[in-house]
Amino acid sequence: MNGLRTDLYEVRMAVSYLRRGMTGPATFSLFARDLPRERGFLVAAGLAEALDALQCFRFEPEELEYVSEGLRLPATDVEALSRLRFSGDVRAIPEGRVVFAGEPLLEVTAPLPEAQLAETLLLNTVTFATAVATKAVRCRLAAPDAELIDFSARRAHGSAAALASARLTALAGFSSTSNLEGAFRYGLRPAGTMAHAYVQAFPGEHAAFRAFAEDFPAAPVFLVDTIDPATGIAHAIDVVRELDLPPASVGIRLDSGDLAELSRLARRMLDDAGLSAARIMASGGLDEYVLERLTAAGAPIDAYGVGTAVGVSSDAPSLDTAYKLVEYDGRPVMKLSVGKRTLPGAKQVWRDPAGGPDLLSLAAEPRPGGEAMLVPAMLAGRRVARPGLATARRRLKRDLVWLPSSARRLRGPVPIDVRPSAALAAMAAEVAAEMPIRRLAALTR
Amino acid sequence: MNGLRTDLYEVRMAVSYLRRGMTGPATFSLFARDLPRERGFLVAAGLAEALDALQCFRFEPEELEYVSEGLRLPATDVEALSRLRFSGDVRAIPEGRVVFAGEPLLEVTAPLPEAQLAETLLLNTVTFATAVATKAVRCRLAAPDAELIDFSARRAHGSAAALASARLTALAGFSSTSNLEGAFRYGLRPAGTMAHAYVQAFPGEHAAFRAFAEDFPAAPVFLVDTIDPATGIAHAIDVVRELDLPPASVGIRLDSGDLAELSRLARRMLDDAGLSAARIMASGGLDEYVLERLTAAGAPIDAYGVGTAVGVSSDAPSLDTAYKLVEYDGRPVMKLSVGKRTLPGAKQVWRDPAGGPDLLSLAAEPRPGGEAMLVPAMLAGRRVARPGLATARRRLKRDLVWLPSSARRLRGPVPIDVRPSAALAAMAAEVAAEMPIRRLAALTR
Repeated sequence: MNGLRTDLYEVRMAVSYLRRGMTGPATFSLFARDLPRERGFLVAAGLAEALDALQCFRFEPEELEYVSEGLRLPATDVEALSRLRFSGDVRAIPEGRVVFAGEPLLEVTAPLPEAQLAETLLLNTVTFATAVATKAVRCRLAAPDAELIDFSARRAHGSAAALASARLTALAGFSSTSNLEGAFRYGLRPAGTMAHAYVQAFPGEHAAFRAFAEDFPAAPVFLVDTIDPATGIAHAIDVVRELDLPPASVGIRLDSGDLAELSRLARRMLDDAGLSAARIMASGGLDEYVLERLTAAGAPIDAYGVGTAVGVSSDAPSLDTAYKLVEYDGRPVMKLSVGKRTLPGAKQVWRDPAGGPDLLSLAAEPRPGGEAMLVPAMLAGRRVARPGLATARRRLKRDLVWLPSSARRLRGPVPIDVRPSAALAAMAAEVAAEMPIRRLAALTR
Repeated sequence: MNGLRTDLYEVRMAVSYLRRGMTGPATFSLFARDLPRERGFLVAAGLAEALDALQCFRFEPEELEYVSEGLRLPATDVEALSRLRFSGDVRAIPEGRVVFAGEPLLEVTAPLPEAQLAETLLLNTVTFATAVATKAVRCRLAAPDAELIDFSARRAHGSAAALASARLTALAGFSSTSNLEGAFRYGLRPAGTMAHAYVQAFPGEHAAFRAFAEDFPAAPVFLVDTIDPATGIAHAIDVVRELDLPPASVGIRLDSGDLAELSRLARRMLDDAGLSAARIMASGGLDEYVLERLTAAGAPIDAYGVGTAVGVSSDAPSLDTAYKLVEYDGRPVMKLSVGKRTLPGAKQVWRDPAGGPDLLSLAAEPRPGGEAMLVPAMLAGRRVARPGLATARRRLKRDLVWLPSSARRLRGPVPIDVRPSAALAAMAAEVAAEMPIRRLAALTR
């Protein structure tokens, strides 16, 4: 059931198109109008989920009944809606690729009603996934030598969002997730230590640590800040010695206070105890800016649990994405709305392997050189390929190497330029000139 | 299937508790440590969904198999996990009530493993819902006389989050939602106009408006900014006249540009055309700050479509919530972590109807006066009441009247004080004093 996973206006428009036989091929372009502050690039993501939803799109009988009653639709409209499936094509920039404002993340070409109805679903899936993947990559870049663990399940926007975040952080190079469903569903490595409650439930911290190590001797990580971090580290060391645990298998986790200072204290205490192979993990309100600071300070932290900030993309929880009609029945179209003007025509994005500006061309233009970024993802309503997470991760790694450091840096990044081709610019000027504006007395009163 | 909708560490801890017979009653408290910047209060939300999830919590066979293989659990552990259900009690502040930092949104009392396992699920649901409901109320307060419509489906964090937002905005007093699934599921009024694509798909704007009004003559709203707003308004007026539509049934929507100025232009043009009953709607990047500005400017806008900002709670996409053990087996506990210290014991929040500070007391204290905010929500694993959306909306309305304007204002709000009772403060001092801190040489090196 996903026919109702859309906005009412999409259904109204679809009904109107169907009544009027406006079922010619329409191309819609999904892109980010602008990058959020402090984003020098985006990481394309969410495509697979979006296409799966598109592939099984339909109105179920109870959904149809609801819509037809609400809109008072005659039987002919209901019948037409009931037959609707997505039968179109999708060209898309593959997941994991680095993209910029104005570049189509995907383009849908389908009979107008189908392409229209896909709007809400596509925007919803791709916007969220791209925002979170981008945030996760920024964390990855901020602490290049540390292990990163997805801790976002507790504050993502619902459990479905948490599940998606587990996958998106893995795409960005996180090594594991605390989210069991995410690990299960996507074959990721699950990770998890203990909460403060565990320590508190025992008569004392030492007893708690000892119990935990007895129950999970393979790789216990002790949360040391419930009472006082130095005390906690000392208790952890005591337990490692008492149970004669292999130093390389154990770790401690810091979750509050000055993490740079405390990690140095922990390192010193562990080293002094002969546990230089023991690992130090940190968590608690981390984001890319904190990670960058801790990395710059040389904090001896081996692994970070990054949660809320990445799961909700805290400083940019959404992107200014749009899904706009660019061509209908062979006729290129655009809109002139102030600050939201679009460019007409189906497009292609060409990338210069040498790091020059991206070129935004018309899809029909002769190949100007460089790498074509939009590739077929769906043909006649069927997905053409199902590249997995590993493929997407490799693409991202490669693109991050390509990405100039000016666009990659966390603060004040400068995105790659995206330039329209001469043919696209000419078409935009031509289409705009043909859009009649009635000059009215009211305007100048 | 929801046994895996949790973090790995919850399962580890649960297994350890079960092995050790640590199944005594535990009380956990879920609260926001601090309010986000520019929040003078929060609106409690998400409780019903959280309790439903708790009520059907269990590990399904395939989930158990996954967990037991991953953690290499012996059969006795697997057997114990398979029997786990939530059998505890929940006391909660009802949905729609205004709350402040440090006040338990809910308290769970259950056998320790069950109460522990509930953490991820409860935090995930309540944090998101409370953040979005609070943002939505701020929009409601910013434009007290306008109709508000939920437009968040396209950029919420997945379709489940969009569905939740439809309900949460309704709780906050929005009149309708564009989200069909949300309207269907929660009995809300669906709303929707047309997109720019509709205008572009026709040979001209006039033709598009005319077709739309023919197909949906009941209450057509014309999106007028595809080419030029004044032109669009003129086309809308032409169509209303041509089809002789009742003025009170029609409207225009502005989606870009200077909304204050354009709404005045639209009002003037509509009035001059004898359509003073026609409505003006605005959308496009709206949040409570823009609404406040437009309201202050006296913009003649009858209805606002508010989308992304409310669906992701854009300036505060998460809350600093925590789920902390406060009592185990009759023993009050706390943690001392820097900046994250908790208060021990099961609690009650007492509200002064006259607007004085809230009192945070121990649950067992004699009634100090005022209104008790935490009420039974679940007993022995069963929900005790299922108050609907209308009840929550009424509660919220009442609480907003009670809320001092200093806490209600959008910028620089000052929350109500929350004061611990003498008994709570004394218990906290006592418990903290009993938590042994080993002073170590390492600390002062």
